[in-house]
Amino acid sequence: MAAAAPPPPPTPAPSAPTGLSDSTPGGHPLFSRIRLATPLDIPYIQKLIHQLAIFEKLADLCTATESDLASTLFKSPPFHSFTIFLLEVSSRPFENDSAFHSQNFTPIERIINLDHSVSDPEAEAFANGINGDVVVAGFVLFFPSYSTFLGKPGFYVEDLFVRECYRRKGLGKMLLSAVASQAARMGYGRVEWAVLDWNANAIKFYEEMGANVLPEWRICRLTGPALEAHRDAN
Amino acid sequence: MAAAAPPPPPTPAPSAPTGLSDSTPGGHPLFSRIRLATPLDIPYIQKLIHQLAIFEKLADLCTATESDLASTLFKSPPFHSFTIFLLEVSSRPFENDSAFHSQNFTPIERIINLDHSVSDPEAEAFANGINGDVVVAGFVLFFPSYSTFLGKPGFYVEDLFVRECYRRKGLGKMLLSAVASQAARMGYGRVEWAVLDWNANAIKFYEEMGANVLPEWRICRLTGPALEAHRDAN
Repeated sequence: MAAAAPPPPPTPAPSAPTGLSDSTPGGHPLFSRIRLATPLDIPYIQKLIHQLAIFEKLADLCTATESDLASTLFKSPPFHSFTIFLLEVSSRPFENDSAFHSQNFTPIERIINLDHSVSDPEAEAFANGINGDVVVAGFVLFFPSYSTFLGKPGFYVEDLFVRECYRRKGLGKMLLSAVASQAARMGYGRVEWAVLDWNANAIKFYEEMGANVLPEWRICRLTGPALEAHRDAN
Repeated sequence: MAAAAPPPPPTPAPSAPTGLSDSTPGGHPLFSRIRLATPLDIPYIQKLIHQLAIFEKLADLCTATESDLASTLFKSPPFHSFTIFLLEVSSRPFENDSAFHSQNFTPIERIINLDHSVSDPEAEAFANGINGDVVVAGFVLFFPSYSTFLGKPGFYVEDLFVRECYRRKGLGKMLLSAVASQAARMGYGRVEWAVLDWNANAIKFYEEMGANVLPEWRICRLTGPALEAHRDAN
Protein backbone atom coordinates (compact mmCIF):
# COMPACT_ATOMS: atom_id res chain seq x y z
CA MET A 1 0.00 0.00 0.00
CA ALA A 2 -0.98 2.73 -0.45
CA ALA A 3 -1.95 5.87 -2.20
CA ALA A 4 1.21 7.81 -2.69
CA ALA A 5 2.15 11.28 -2.72
CA PRO A 6 1.48 13.50 -5.63
CA PRO A 7 2.71 16.86 -4.48
CA PRO A 8 0.39 19.86 -4.73
CA PRO A 9 -0.55 21.15 -8.16
CA PRO A 10 1.81 23.59 -9.81
CA THR A 11 2.01 27.10 -8.56
CA PRO A 12 1.32 29.77 -11.18
CA ALA A 13 4.20 30.22 -13.57
CA PRO A 14 6.45 33.16 -12.79
CA SER A 15 6.37 36.05 -15.22
CA ALA A 16 8.36 35.44 -18.36
CA PRO A 17 12.06 36.02 -18.07
CA THR A 18 13.38 38.72 -20.32
CA GLY A 19 16.37 38.40 -22.61
CA LEU A 20 17.93 35.18 -23.78
CA SER A 21 16.57 32.07 -22.15
CA ASP A 22 15.85 28.47 -22.97
CA SER A 23 12.49 28.77 -21.33
CA THR A 24 9.34 29.83 -23.11
CA PRO A 25 6.33 30.49 -20.92
CA GLY A 26 3.88 27.75 -21.77
CA GLY A 27 5.87 27.02 -24.88
CA HIS A 28 6.71 23.40 -24.12
CA PRO A 29 3.61 21.28 -24.52
CA LEU A 30 3.57 17.98 -22.64
CA PHE A 31 1.02 15.67 -24.20
CA SER A 32 -0.44 13.43 -21.51
CA ARG A 33 -2.75 10.45 -21.79
CA ILE A 34 -4.51 8.17 -19.31
CA ARG A 35 -5.50 4.76 -20.66
CA LEU A 36 -6.35 1.33 -19.30
CA ALA A 37 -3.20 -0.68 -18.69
CA THR A 38 -2.78 -4.05 -20.40
CA PRO A 39 -0.63 -7.10 -19.57
CA LEU A 40 2.02 -5.67 -21.91
CA ASP A 41 2.51 -2.83 -19.42
CA ILE A 42 3.52 -5.09 -16.54
CA PRO A 43 7.28 -4.37 -16.82
CA TYR A 44 6.59 -0.61 -16.42
CA ILE A 45 4.09 -1.20 -13.63
CA GLN A 46 6.52 -3.37 -11.71
CA LYS A 47 9.20 -0.66 -11.88
CA LEU A 48 6.74 2.05 -10.84
CA ILE A 49 5.61 -0.02 -7.84
CA HIS A 50 9.21 -0.35 -6.68
CA GLN A 51 9.82 3.39 -7.09
CA LEU A 52 6.72 4.02 -4.98
CA ALA A 53 7.97 1.67 -2.27
CA ILE A 54 11.26 3.55 -2.14
CA PHE A 55 9.42 6.89 -1.94
CA GLU A 56 7.36 5.58 0.98
CA LYS A 57 10.49 4.26 2.71
CA LEU A 58 8.94 0.81 2.58
CA ALA A 59 11.17 -0.83 -0.03
CA ASP A 60 11.84 -3.82 2.22
CA LEU A 61 8.12 -4.67 2.11
CA CYS A 62 8.01 -4.65 -1.67
CA THR A 63 8.60 -8.07 -3.18
CA ALA A 64 6.31 -8.04 -6.22
CA THR A 65 7.87 -9.53 -9.35
CA GLU A 66 6.58 -9.20 -12.90
CA SER A 67 5.50 -12.81 -12.63
CA ASP A 68 3.50 -12.10 -9.44
CA LEU A 69 1.72 -9.24 -11.19
CA ALA A 70 1.09 -11.23 -14.37
CA SER A 71 -0.54 -14.06 -12.44
CA THR A 72 -2.88 -11.84 -10.41
CA LEU A 73 -3.78 -8.79 -12.57
CA PHE A 74 -5.93 -8.45 -15.71
CA LYS A 75 -8.09 -11.46 -14.80
CA SER A 76 -11.41 -9.54 -14.89
CA PRO A 77 -12.92 -6.89 -17.15
CA PRO A 78 -11.87 -3.35 -16.23
CA PHE A 79 -13.57 -1.89 -13.12
CA HIS A 80 -14.93 -5.27 -11.97
CA SER A 81 -11.81 -6.02 -9.97
CA PHE A 82 -8.22 -4.71 -9.84
CA THR A 83 -7.89 -2.00 -12.49
CA ILE A 84 -4.94 0.11 -13.58
CA PHE A 85 -4.91 3.42 -15.39
CA LEU A 86 -1.52 4.11 -16.96
CA LEU A 87 -0.26 7.66 -17.43
CA GLU A 88 1.83 8.30 -20.54
CA VAL A 89 3.43 11.50 -21.72
CA SER A 90 5.01 12.63 -24.94
CA SER A 91 6.50 15.78 -26.38
CA ARG A 92 4.48 15.13 -29.53
CA PRO A 93 0.76 14.50 -30.03
CA PHE A 94 -0.31 10.89 -29.48
CA GLU A 95 -1.13 8.90 -32.52
CA ASN A 96 -4.77 7.95 -32.51
CA ASP A 97 -4.16 4.44 -31.29
CA SER A 98 -7.49 2.68 -31.50
CA ALA A 99 -6.06 -0.31 -29.61
CA PHE A 100 -6.46 1.71 -26.44
CA HIS A 101 -10.06 2.65 -27.07
CA SER A 102 -12.54 0.20 -25.66
CA GLN A 103 -16.16 -0.06 -24.68
CA ASN A 104 -15.01 0.29 -21.12
CA PHE A 105 -12.94 3.41 -21.25
CA THR A 106 -11.94 6.10 -23.72
CA PRO A 107 -8.43 7.40 -23.05
CA ILE A 108 -8.23 10.84 -21.51
CA GLU A 109 -5.83 13.23 -23.21
CA ARG A 110 -4.65 16.61 -22.06
CA ILE A 111 -1.98 19.05 -23.19
CA ILE A 112 -0.01 20.66 -20.37
CA ASN A 113 1.85 23.77 -21.40
CA LEU A 114 5.14 23.99 -19.51
CA ASP A 115 7.71 26.74 -19.44
CA HIS A 116 10.57 24.24 -19.68
CA SER A 117 10.77 20.88 -21.33
CA VAL A 118 11.09 17.97 -18.91
CA SER A 119 14.40 16.20 -18.61
CA ASP A 120 13.60 12.55 -17.93
CA PRO A 121 16.65 10.59 -16.75
CA GLU A 122 14.73 7.32 -17.07
CA ALA A 123 13.19 7.96 -20.48
CA GLU A 124 14.80 4.88 -21.95
CA ALA A 125 13.61 2.49 -19.24
CA PHE A 126 10.06 3.80 -19.48
CA ALA A 127 9.85 4.29 -23.26
CA ASN A 128 6.75 2.74 -24.68
CA GLY A 129 7.70 0.07 -27.17
CA ILE A 130 5.10 1.04 -29.74
CA ASN A 131 5.69 4.75 -30.09
CA GLY A 132 9.26 5.77 -29.48
CA ASP A 133 8.34 9.20 -28.22
CA VAL A 134 5.93 8.04 -25.55
CA VAL A 135 7.07 7.32 -22.00
CA VAL A 136 5.21 5.86 -19.05
CA ALA A 137 5.05 8.48 -16.28
CA GLY A 138 2.78 7.00 -13.62
CA PHE A 139 -0.19 4.85 -12.74
CA VAL A 140 -3.12 4.42 -10.42
CA LEU A 141 -4.35 0.99 -9.25
CA PHE A 142 -7.86 0.75 -7.84
CA PHE A 143 -10.62 -1.81 -7.27
CA PRO A 144 -14.28 -1.89 -6.25
CA SER A 145 -15.05 -1.43 -2.58
CA TYR A 146 -18.45 -1.50 -0.89
CA SER A 147 -20.13 0.88 1.51
CA THR A 148 -22.76 -0.92 3.54
CA PHE A 149 -23.98 2.41 4.90
CA LEU A 150 -24.66 3.71 1.37
CA GLY A 151 -25.65 0.31 0.02
CA LYS A 152 -23.43 1.07 -2.95
CA PRO A 153 -20.05 0.17 -4.39
CA GLY A 154 -17.17 2.59 -4.49
CA PHE A 155 -13.56 2.46 -5.56
CA TYR A 156 -10.56 1.97 -3.31
CA VAL A 157 -7.32 3.44 -4.66
CA GLU A 158 -4.42 1.27 -3.59
CA ASP A 159 -1.63 3.14 -5.35
CA LEU A 160 -1.23 6.47 -7.07
CA PHE A 161 2.20 7.30 -8.37
CA VAL A 162 3.83 9.78 -10.74
CA ARG A 163 7.54 9.56 -11.49
CA GLU A 164 9.58 12.30 -9.88
CA CYS A 165 10.43 14.36 -12.96
CA TYR A 166 6.75 14.62 -13.90
CA ARG A 167 5.46 15.79 -10.52
CA ARG A 168 3.97 19.21 -9.76
CA LYS A 169 2.36 19.42 -13.18
CA GLY A 170 -1.18 18.36 -12.30
CA LEU A 171 -0.70 14.77 -13.49
CA GLY A 172 -1.42 13.16 -10.12
CA LYS A 173 -4.63 15.14 -9.92
CA MET A 174 -5.50 14.05 -13.45
CA LEU A 175 -5.05 10.36 -12.47
CA LEU A 176 -7.07 10.56 -9.26
CA SER A 177 -9.75 12.63 -10.93
CA ALA A 178 -10.02 10.00 -13.66
CA VAL A 179 -10.88 7.42 -10.99
CA ALA A 180 -13.36 9.77 -9.31
CA SER A 181 -14.97 10.58 -12.65
CA GLN A 182 -15.32 6.89 -13.44
CA ALA A 183 -16.89 6.27 -10.01
CA ALA A 184 -19.38 9.11 -10.46
CA ARG A 185 -20.36 7.93 -13.94
CA MET A 186 -20.92 4.38 -12.64
CA GLY A 187 -23.18 5.71 -9.86
CA TYR A 188 -20.72 4.67 -7.18
CA GLY A 189 -20.89 6.31 -3.77
CA ARG A 190 -17.31 7.12 -2.87
CA VAL A 191 -13.62 6.84 -3.58
CA GLU A 192 -11.26 6.08 -0.70
CA TRP A 193 -7.53 5.69 -0.26
CA ALA A 194 -4.91 5.93 2.48
CA VAL A 195 -2.27 8.56 3.07
CA LEU A 196 0.72 8.68 5.40
CA ASP A 197 0.04 11.19 8.17
CA TRP A 198 3.50 12.78 7.74
CA ASN A 199 2.85 13.53 4.08
CA ALA A 200 1.48 17.05 4.53
CA ASN A 201 1.82 17.90 0.84
CA ALA A 202 -0.29 14.93 -0.17
CA ILE A 203 -2.93 15.66 2.46
CA LYS A 204 -3.21 19.26 1.26
CA PHE A 205 -3.47 18.06 -2.34
CA TYR A 206 -6.21 15.55 -1.50
CA GLU A 207 -8.20 18.08 0.51
CA GLU A 208 -8.02 20.52 -2.38
CA MET A 209 -9.54 17.80 -4.56
CA GLY A 210 -12.50 17.62 -2.19
CA ALA A 211 -11.51 14.65 -0.04
CA ASN A 212 -11.90 14.40 3.72
CA VAL A 213 -9.09 12.90 5.77
CA LEU A 214 -10.77 10.77 8.45
CA PRO A 215 -8.95 11.37 11.73
CA GLU A 216 -10.43 8.53 13.84
CA TRP A 217 -9.96 5.44 11.70
CA ARG A 218 -6.88 3.22 11.85
CA ILE A 219 -6.01 0.45 9.43
CA CYS A 220 -5.56 -3.05 10.84
CA ARG A 221 -3.54 -5.60 8.93
CA LEU A 222 -3.21 -9.36 9.31
CA THR A 223 -0.42 -10.73 7.14
CA GLY A 224 2.44 -13.23 6.96
CA PRO A 225 2.64 -15.94 9.61
CA ALA A 226 -0.10 -14.25 11.67
CA LEU A 227 -2.47 -14.65 8.72
CA GLU A 228 -1.28 -18.15 7.98
CA ALA A 229 -2.05 -19.14 11.59
CA HIS A 230 -5.75 -18.77 10.78
CA ARG A 231 -5.65 -21.14 7.81
CA ASP A 232 -7.02 -24.11 9.71
CA ALA A 233 -8.67 -22.12 12.46
CA ASN A 234 -12.12 -23.26 11.43
CA MET B 1 -17.70 1.62 6.92
CA ALA B 2 -16.13 -0.07 8.72
CA ALA B 3 -15.06 -3.02 10.73
CA ALA B 4 -16.93 -2.87 13.97
CA ALA B 5 -16.28 -3.75 17.41
CA PRO B 6 -16.44 -7.27 18.63
CA PRO B 7 -15.42 -7.04 22.26
CA PRO B 8 -12.61 -9.22 23.54
CA PRO B 9 -13.17 -12.94 23.80
CA PRO B 10 -14.87 -14.24 26.92
CA THR B 11 -12.93 -14.37 30.13
CA PRO B 12 -12.81 -17.79 31.77
CA ALA B 13 -16.11 -18.73 33.38
CA PRO B 14 -16.21 -18.11 37.12
CA SER B 15 -16.40 -21.17 39.33
CA ALA B 16 -19.83 -22.73 39.44
CA PRO B 17 -22.26 -21.15 41.84
CA THR B 18 -23.47 -23.45 44.58
CA GLY B 19 -27.07 -24.00 45.57
CA LEU B 20 -30.06 -23.24 43.43
CA SER B 21 -29.31 -21.42 40.24
CA ASP B 22 -30.46 -21.21 36.67
CA SER B 23 -26.89 -21.38 35.50
CA THR B 24 -25.03 -24.52 34.65
CA PRO B 25 -21.34 -24.12 33.93
CA GLY B 26 -21.00 -24.90 30.24
CA GLY B 27 -24.41 -26.50 30.29
CA HIS B 28 -26.06 -24.26 27.72
CA PRO B 29 -24.75 -25.09 24.27
CA LEU B 30 -25.04 -22.38 21.64
CA PHE B 31 -24.82 -23.92 18.20
CA SER B 32 -23.20 -21.44 15.83
CA ARG B 33 -22.76 -21.55 12.09
CA ILE B 34 -21.05 -19.37 9.51
CA ARG B 35 -22.33 -19.72 5.97
CA LEU B 36 -22.34 -17.70 2.76
CA ALA B 37 -25.22 -15.24 2.73
CA THR B 38 -27.76 -15.35 -0.11
CA PRO B 39 -30.17 -12.74 -1.50
CA LEU B 40 -32.83 -14.18 0.84
CA ASP B 41 -30.78 -12.86 3.78
CA ILE B 42 -30.95 -9.21 2.68
CA PRO B 43 -33.66 -8.22 5.20
CA TYR B 44 -31.46 -9.44 8.07
CA ILE B 45 -28.36 -7.87 6.60
CA GLN B 46 -30.06 -4.51 6.22
CA LYS B 47 -31.12 -4.55 9.88
CA LEU B 48 -27.65 -5.58 11.02
CA ILE B 49 -26.05 -2.76 9.02
CA HIS B 50 -28.30 -0.21 10.70
CA GLN B 51 -27.49 -1.63 14.15
CA LEU B 52 -23.82 -1.31 13.31
CA ALA B 53 -24.29 2.33 12.27
CA ILE B 54 -25.98 3.09 15.58
CA PHE B 55 -23.17 1.35 17.48
CA GLU B 56 -20.61 3.47 15.61
CA LYS B 57 -22.61 6.65 16.30
CA LEU B 58 -22.87 7.12 12.54
CA ALA B 59 -26.56 6.36 12.02
CA ASP B 60 -27.09 9.59 10.06
CA LEU B 61 -24.64 8.31 7.41
CA CYS B 62 -26.51 5.03 6.98
CA THR B 63 -29.10 5.18 4.22
CA ALA B 64 -28.90 1.67 2.73
CA THR B 65 -32.29 0.17 1.92
CA GLU B 66 -33.03 -3.47 1.15
CA SER B 67 -33.48 -2.42 -2.44
CA ASP B 68 -30.03 -0.76 -2.53
CA LEU B 69 -28.46 -3.94 -1.21
CA ALA B 70 -30.42 -6.20 -3.56
CA SER B 71 -29.30 -4.22 -6.59
CA THR B 72 -25.60 -4.21 -5.68
CA LEU B 73 -24.83 -7.46 -3.81
CA PHE B 74 -24.67 -11.09 -4.95
CA LYS B 75 -23.75 -10.13 -8.52
CA SER B 76 -20.52 -12.18 -8.62
CA PRO B 77 -19.49 -15.63 -7.39
CA PRO B 78 -18.41 -15.66 -3.73
CA PHE B 79 -14.94 -14.21 -3.04
CA HIS B 80 -14.67 -12.60 -6.50
CA SER B 81 -16.28 -9.39 -5.29
CA PHE B 82 -18.43 -8.31 -2.32
CA THR B 83 -18.97 -11.37 -0.14
CA ILE B 84 -20.96 -11.86 3.07
CA PHE B 85 -20.59 -14.55 5.69
CA LEU B 86 -23.70 -14.77 7.84
CA LEU B 87 -23.51 -15.90 11.47
CA GLU B 88 -26.45 -17.92 12.74
CA VAL B 89 -27.01 -19.40 16.18
CA SER B 90 -29.44 -21.90 17.60
CA SER B 91 -30.06 -23.64 20.89
CA ARG B 92 -30.42 -26.89 18.94
CA PRO B 93 -28.08 -28.56 16.46
CA PHE B 94 -28.42 -27.26 12.90
CA GLU B 95 -30.16 -29.47 10.44
CA ASN B 96 -27.74 -30.56 7.76
CA ASP B 97 -28.97 -28.07 5.21
CA SER B 98 -27.25 -28.98 1.98
CA ALA B 99 -28.53 -25.77 0.39
CA PHE B 100 -25.79 -23.92 2.24
CA HIS B 101 -23.00 -26.24 1.12
CA SER B 102 -21.35 -25.16 -2.08
CA GLN B 103 -18.22 -25.68 -4.07
CA ASN B 104 -17.10 -22.32 -2.79
CA PHE B 105 -17.51 -22.70 0.93
CA THR B 106 -18.51 -25.33 3.45
CA PRO B 107 -20.31 -23.81 6.43
CA ILE B 108 -18.31 -23.64 9.63
CA GLU B 109 -20.07 -24.96 12.72
CA ARG B 110 -19.05 -24.69 16.33
CA ILE B 111 -20.70 -25.43 19.66
CA ILE B 112 -20.10 -22.82 22.33
CA ASN B 113 -20.82 -24.01 25.83
CA LEU B 114 -22.25 -21.18 27.89
CA ASP B 115 -23.10 -21.04 31.57
CA HIS B 116 -26.36 -19.23 30.88
CA SER B 117 -28.71 -19.40 27.96
CA VAL B 118 -28.84 -16.22 25.91
CA SER B 119 -31.91 -14.04 26.15
CA ASP B 120 -32.37 -12.53 22.70
CA PRO B 121 -34.86 -9.62 22.75
CA GLU B 122 -34.86 -9.51 18.95
CA ALA B 123 -35.18 -13.24 18.32
CA GLU B 124 -38.39 -12.79 16.36
CA ALA B 125 -37.03 -10.11 14.02
CA PHE B 126 -33.94 -12.20 13.28
CA ALA B 127 -35.53 -15.65 13.19
CA ASN B 128 -34.52 -17.54 10.09
CA GLY B 129 -37.59 -18.34 8.03
CA ILE B 130 -36.57 -21.90 7.27
CA ASN B 131 -35.72 -23.25 10.69
CA GLY B 132 -37.73 -21.69 13.48
CA ASP B 133 -35.02 -22.16 16.06
CA VAL B 134 -32.25 -20.45 14.10
CA VAL B 135 -31.58 -16.73 14.47
CA VAL B 136 -29.22 -14.47 12.59
CA ALA B 137 -26.64 -13.10 15.03
CA GLY B 138 -24.11 -11.24 12.90
CA PHE B 139 -22.24 -10.91 9.63
CA VAL B 140 -18.99 -9.96 7.99
CA LEU B 141 -18.79 -8.26 4.58
CA PHE B 142 -15.50 -8.37 2.71
CA PHE B 143 -14.12 -8.09 -0.81
CA PRO B 144 -10.85 -8.64 -2.67
CA SER B 145 -8.19 -5.99 -2.28
CA TYR B 146 -4.77 -5.87 -3.91
CA SER B 147 -1.31 -5.33 -2.49
CA THR B 148 1.03 -4.01 -5.17
CA PHE B 149 3.97 -4.52 -2.81
CA LEU B 150 3.19 -8.23 -2.44
CA GLY B 151 1.88 -8.57 -6.00
CA LYS B 152 -1.02 -10.51 -4.51
CA PRO B 153 -4.69 -10.07 -3.70
CA GLY B 154 -5.98 -9.86 -0.16
CA PHE B 155 -9.33 -9.29 1.48
CA TYR B 156 -10.63 -6.01 2.85
CA VAL B 157 -13.20 -6.40 5.62
CA GLU B 158 -15.71 -3.58 5.39
CA ASP B 159 -18.01 -4.61 8.23
CA LEU B 160 -17.89 -7.07 11.08
CA PHE B 161 -20.84 -7.12 13.41
CA VAL B 162 -22.31 -9.34 16.12
CA ARG B 163 -25.63 -8.43 17.75
CA GLU B 164 -25.25 -7.20 21.31
CA CYS B 165 -26.68 -10.19 23.17
CA TYR B 166 -24.26 -12.54 21.38
CA ARG B 167 -21.07 -10.59 22.06
CA ARG B 168 -18.22 -11.74 24.32
CA LYS B 169 -18.66 -15.35 23.30
CA GLY B 170 -15.95 -15.64 20.66
CA LEU B 171 -18.33 -15.21 17.70
CA GLY B 172 -16.68 -12.06 16.31
CA LYS B 173 -13.36 -13.86 16.39
CA MET B 174 -14.95 -16.83 14.62
CA LEU B 175 -16.24 -14.53 11.83
CA LEU B 176 -12.96 -12.68 11.31
CA SER B 177 -10.97 -15.88 11.52
CA ALA B 178 -13.21 -17.39 8.83
CA VAL B 179 -12.20 -14.57 6.48
CA ALA B 180 -8.52 -14.94 7.39
CA SER B 181 -8.71 -18.71 6.88
CA GLN B 182 -10.31 -18.22 3.47
CA ALA B 183 -7.59 -15.71 2.52
CA ALA B 184 -4.82 -18.09 3.60
CA ARG B 185 -6.33 -21.01 1.71
CA MET B 186 -6.64 -18.89 -1.44
CA GLY B 187 -2.96 -17.90 -1.18
CA TYR B 188 -3.85 -14.27 -0.53
CA GLY B 189 -1.33 -12.01 1.16
CA ARG B 190 -3.24 -10.11 3.79
CA VAL B 191 -6.53 -9.14 5.39
CA GLU B 192 -7.14 -5.51 6.26
CA TRP B 193 -9.90 -3.51 7.91
CA ALA B 194 -10.39 -0.24 9.76
CA VAL B 195 -11.03 0.39 13.44
CA LEU B 196 -12.05 3.53 15.32
CA ASP B 197 -9.12 4.72 17.40
CA TRP B 198 -11.33 5.17 20.48
CA ASN B 199 -12.43 1.54 20.40
CA ALA B 200 -9.76 0.14 22.71
CA ASN B 201 -11.61 -3.16 23.21
CA ALA B 202 -11.69 -3.81 19.49
CA ILE B 203 -8.03 -2.86 19.05
CA LYS B 204 -7.03 -5.27 21.82
CA PHE B 205 -9.18 -7.99 20.28
CA TYR B 206 -7.64 -7.50 16.83
CA GLU B 207 -4.09 -7.45 18.17
CA GLU B 208 -4.76 -10.69 20.02
CA MET B 209 -5.80 -12.18 16.68
CA GLY B 210 -2.40 -11.30 15.27
CA ALA B 211 -3.21 -8.02 13.49
CA ASN B 212 -1.08 -4.91 13.47
CA VAL B 213 -2.75 -1.53 13.87
CA LEU B 214 -0.92 0.83 11.49
CA PRO B 215 -0.38 4.14 13.28
CA GLU B 216 0.69 6.32 10.34
CA TRP B 217 -1.97 5.76 7.72
CA ARG B 218 -5.11 7.88 7.45
CA ILE B 219 -8.11 7.13 5.28
CA CYS B 220 -9.12 9.73 2.69
CA ARG B 221 -12.65 9.80 1.36
CA LEU B 222 -14.19 11.56 -1.62
CA THR B 223 -17.97 11.29 -1.59
CA GLY B 224 -21.24 13.14 -2.23
CA PRO B 225 -21.08 16.42 -4.16
CA ALA B 226 -17.27 16.50 -3.93
CA LEU B 227 -17.16 13.19 -5.80
CA GLU B 228 -19.84 14.25 -8.24
CA ALA B 229 -17.79 17.35 -9.08
CA HIS B 230 -15.23 15.08 -10.77
CA ARG B 231 -17.79 13.42 -13.05
CA ASP B 232 -16.94 15.53 -16.06
CA ALA B 233 -13.49 16.55 -14.92
CA ASN B 234 -11.85 14.70 -17.78
